[in-house]
Amino acid sequence: MPDFRSKLETFDNRYPGRDYKIEIVAPEFTSVCPKTGQPDFGTITINYVPRSKCVELKSLKLYLQSYRNEGIFYENVANAILDDLVAVLDPQWMKIEAAFSPRGGITEKVSVQHVAAV
Amino acid sequence: MPDFRSKLETFDNRYPGRDYKIEIVAPEFTSVCPKTGQPDFGTITINYVPRSKCVELKSLKLYLQSYRNEGIFYENVANAILDDLVAVLDPQWMKIEAAFSPRGGITEKVSVQHVAAV
Amino acid sequence: MPDFRSKLETFDNRYPGRDYKIEIVAPEFTSVCPKTGQPDFGTITINYVPRSKCVELKSLKLYLQSYRNEGIFYENVANAILDDLVAVLDPQWMKIEAAFSPRGGITEKVSVQHVAAV
Amino acid sequence: MPDFRSKLETFDNRYPGRDYKIEIVAPEFTSVCPKTGQPDFGTITINYVPRSKCVELKSLKLYLQSYRNEGIFYENVANAILDDLVAVLDPQWMKIEAAFSPRGGITEKVSVQHVAAV
Amino acid sequence: MPDFRSKLETFDNRYPGRDYKIEIVAPEFTSVCPKTGQPDFGTITINYVPRSKCVELKSLKLYLQSYRNEGIFYENVANAILDDLVAVLDPQWMKIEAAFSPRGGITEKVSVQHVAAV
Amino acid sequence: MPDFRSKLETFDNRYPGRDYKIEIVAPEFTSVCPKTGQPDFGTITINYVPRSKCVELKSLKLYLQSYRNEGIFYENVANAILDDLVAVLDPQWMKIEAAFSPRGGITEKVSVQHVAAV
Amino acid sequence: MPDFRSKLETFDNRYPGRDYKIEIVAPEFTSVCPKTGQPDFGTITINYVPRSKCVELKSLKLYLQSYRNEGIFYENVANAILDDLVAVLDPQWMKIEAAFSPRGGITEKVSVQHVAAV
Amino acid sequence: MPDFRSKLETFDNRYPGRDYKIEIVAPEFTSVCPKTGQPDFGTITINYVPRSKCVELKSLKLYLQSYRNEGIFYENVANAILDDLVAVLDPQWMKIEAAFSPRGGITEKVSVQHVAAV
Amino acid sequence: MPDFRSKLETFDNRYPGRDYKIEIVAPEFTSVCPKTGQPDFGTITINYVPRSKCVELKSLKLYLQSYRNEGIFYENVANAILDDLVAVLDPQWMKIEAAFSPRGGITEKVSVQHVAAV
Amino acid sequence: MPDFRSKLETFDNRYPGRDYKIEIVAPEFTSVCPKTGQPDFGTITINYVPRSKCVELKSLKLYLQSYRNEGIFYENVANAILDDLVAVLDPQWMKIEAAFSPRGGITEKVSVQHVAAV
Repeated sequence: MPDFRSKLETFDNRYPGRDYKIEIVAPEFTSVCPKTGQPDFGTITINYVPRSKCVELKSLKLYLQSYRNEGIFYENVANAILDDLVAVLDPQWMKIEAAFSPRGGITEKVSVQHVAAV
Repeated sequence: MPDFRSKLETFDNRYPGRDYKIEIVAPEFTSVCPKTGQPDFGTITINYVPRSKCVELKSLKLYLQSYRNEGIFYENVANAILDDLVAVLDPQWMKIEAAFSPRGGITEKVSVQHVAAV
Repeated sequence: MPDFRSKLETFDNRYPGRDYKIEIVAPEFTSVCPKTGQPDFGTITINYVPRSKCVELKSLKLYLQSYRNEGIFYENVANAILDDLVAVLDPQWMKIEAAFSPRGGITEKVSVQHVAAV
Repeated sequence: MPDFRSKLETFDNRYPGRDYKIEIVAPEFTSVCPKTGQPDFGTITINYVPRSKCVELKSLKLYLQSYRNEGIFYENVANAILDDLVAVLDPQWMKIEAAFSPRGGITEKVSVQHVAAV
Repeated sequence: MPDFRSKLETFDNRYPGRDYKIEIVAPEFTSVCPKTGQPDFGTITINYVPRSKCVELKSLKLYLQSYRNEGIFYENVANAILDDLVAVLDPQWMKIEAAFSPRGGITEKVSVQHVAAV
Repeated sequence: MPDFRSKLETFDNRYPGRDYKIEIVAPEFTSVCPKTGQPDFGTITINYVPRSKCVELKSLKLYLQSYRNEGIFYENVANAILDDLVAVLDPQWMKIEAAFSPRGGITEKVSVQHVAAV
Repeated sequence: MPDFRSKLETFDNRYPGRDYKIEIVAPEFTSVCPKTGQPDFGTITINYVPRSKCVELKSLKLYLQSYRNEGIFYENVANAILDDLVAVLDPQWMKIEAAFSPRGGITEKVSVQHVAAV
Repeated sequence: MPDFRSKLETFDNRYPGRDYKIEIVAPEFTSVCPKTGQPDFGTITINYVPRSKCVELKSLKLYLQSYRNEGIFYENVANAILDDLVAVLDPQWMKIEAAFSPRGGITEKVSVQHVAAV
Repeated sequence: MPDFRSKLETFDNRYPGRDYKIEIVAPEFTSVCPKTGQPDFGTITINYVPRSKCVELKSLKLYLQSYRNEGIFYENVANAILDDLVAVLDPQWMKIEAAFSPRGGITEKVSVQHVAAV
Repeated sequence: MPDFRSKLETFDNRYPGRDYKIEIVAPEFTSVCPKTGQPDFGTITINYVPRSKCVELKSLKLYLQSYRNEGIFYENVANAILDDLVAVLDPQWMKIEAAFSPRGGITEKVSVQHVAAV
């Protein structure tokens, strides 16, 4: 898989000593099925508690758009987004939910969390 | 009952050390009543936490289609799907719900779980 | 009260070592009021965790139809169905809910459970 | 078919010179399928504009209960009720709708009208 | 039937040359069934276009309460209210709808209109 | 207050050794305001776990109708019904909710429970 | 009734040659019942097509607040508002709906229109 | 602030030894903003468990109407009502919720409780 | 009022001989009240049938943002947008709806249409 | 960032010894994106338990309007409002939720709390 992670930009969290939660919903995610070559559509929901950095939303939009022509399983979408955001943000806690539209009458939703080591 | 299990294909879980949950909903399930020979219709909902493997969705669709002309009780549908998916995936945890349309004015829903031995 | 219990047929639970739950909803129940002789209408909801046997749905339908011309109080409907199903199935756990249509502007719902002795 | 019509009682319309509409909904209708012997369940809706007589509701209830153990097709239910009510009431206009619960996944509704000759 | 009409009070329509519509909904109507002696409950909806008089609401409430212990058929409730209001108000147009709670599983709604002669 | 309690009839609970719950909803309750003499309207909801007796529904309907012309505060309605039903049924547990229609723009709901001494 | 009309301010319609519709909803209307002295509450809905003037909203708010301590029948509320707005605006078309909260279990809604003479 | 408390009337709780809950909803509350002089509108919800006294509803209505022309902050409305009702009723427990309509696009809700000292 | 119209850009309608309808909803409109200087918020809905030109959406966004610090009545907002779009697009038909958030408890919606001369 | 905090006015909490909760919802918040210069729209929800001071609502409205032309990230909006309100009110507890409209198809919500040191 190509390097999408470098598209993510951050800005400094001005309130690093305070625990607060950020929820981001991106209902326009699209990628390609690695088996059939057909496009898939889904909603990516990101929740996190930042440490020293926050993700900049326009760069996140461009990052998510990188998957547009990428052949990738649903399970890997959720995990790859988690890996990339954790690498760039090092948050205290993060949860990714990826819910995909029906294909052949079947719907799938993948949920994964990261908790920082103390 | 014929061997449906061999239709299930898997792919390697790229994130085996991480706990995450996958939910799959298949609202177009149909089988045949073993008593009356009449078709039954229902929705199969699968939830699981993978270990080293994930089920490939197209093969799951073909697997579920195998029941189309099979005479089988509702209770056995849910348990057979659980058995087949557990055998092929060896998940940490899995839950199957099978909810069927009314027959003779009566509706049935079957729920069954698997928890891996530690 | 005549013997309705013998109408209930069972089939062997192929998965006796596994705990799973079966929910059955029968919205077309009708019996007769023992005070007025007028027909009553209601919905019977059955939930159970089987041991070695499951109830066969067509026989359950015929069993429930037996009450069609029977004079019986709502409270006894719920308890009699529980007694008959427990006697025939010996489940680990069972719950019966019987919700009746209004009579004289008054609606009644009866709920009763059985838990198997250990 | 036995004579159910004689169960219908009427009372004099005190306002015979005025056109007004009466709507009666009876959601607890049940009869028996003449093919399978199984009970059917449905809702009967009656609309009419009376001439000199109105139907008394308690007698209508007993009349509709007469079908409880009668083997009769859905189409005949609607038409028989129309025939009996027209014979007894001689209304200016009457419409019967009979909507039945699903059987084998199929639902049926029958509608029939009577308009008095001028 | 006793004289309830005299309980209705009116006040002069200050805008007699203008056509406007008044809708009154009274969901707490109760009377007594002349067959069984049991109380009936319903909602009375009145719509009218006044001529020189409007009905005063508190007197209308007391008028409708007069039916509380009166044995009367549903059809006569709607027509009697129309007759009384037309006699007292002489409106250009009036419509009465009387919708009653189910009795023995059966619901009835009566609708009647008055149009003033030109 | 007159003796309404004697209107309540009971029948023997055939299943006295089993805990089960009965819910009764009576949406056509009406009484009279002791301050204004105006009728009040409300819904009475009864939940109980019987000991040796159950309340017969037709007698309960007649009992609740006794309040029709009785001047009584909302709070006393709920408590009086509880007292009468506890005296007659001696249940293990009972809860009464009385929810009244708005008067002067204000709505009131009263909730009261009884738990049998061990 | 005191002069409320003078509270209404207008501004010039900059688009007098064009037909367009303005809808104003005021759900916080309150006045006083002329019979009982008790406050009434309602929602006033105004629709109009302006000619040379539009009503200024803050002055309309103050105008509607003038009724706060005024004893007035519901029917007169709707007609008085229509009269005042028509006098001040001379619209092509205007419709007033006044819907009031229940009093003694009874709800009233008054609707009145004005169409300019050609 | 003038003395509104004296408008509150009580009646003896006939069931003082029993814990029961009374919920009162008054959606027609109106007062005046002490900053702008403009009317405010809100819903007052009262929940309490009485000791020896209950509040009489008509007097409560008149008490709440006292605020109609009173300039008072939202926070003080909720606390003043609590103080007055606690002083008059000495309840075991009481909770007041005051939810106000938007002003300048901003909505406020105030919640306050009283628990009697043991 | 400054010139906002020049911000609107268009592109050629490739299908000028065909009647088709375009609906645009802009829920983030904000302007300033010319009376109080306070910000107003609303939703602008545009429907039109193009002739030779369509409006470019990004320029429309910037055009609508021009009103952000402009003091203007609701009625003029709707008409000004219509005038500007009609001048730039010369559509066959266009309708503007401007629905504003409540101010002082009052909500306003303005609707205006343009039909091209034949 | 300019000093907005000085716009916040307070009034003395008349009930400082009592714990009560105030919820304020402001759905008309708008600021400017510091990256693109485009306006952002959102809803600010404030919950707090006061100590000796409450925030005056009109000043809060003007305070929130200060952000109208300010370039600021969503995360900083929520934290800055918390900082300013905590500095001015010194509440026992406060929670701010800032939920923003979609940009580039992506929605964000930020939640942050303050608990006073004991």
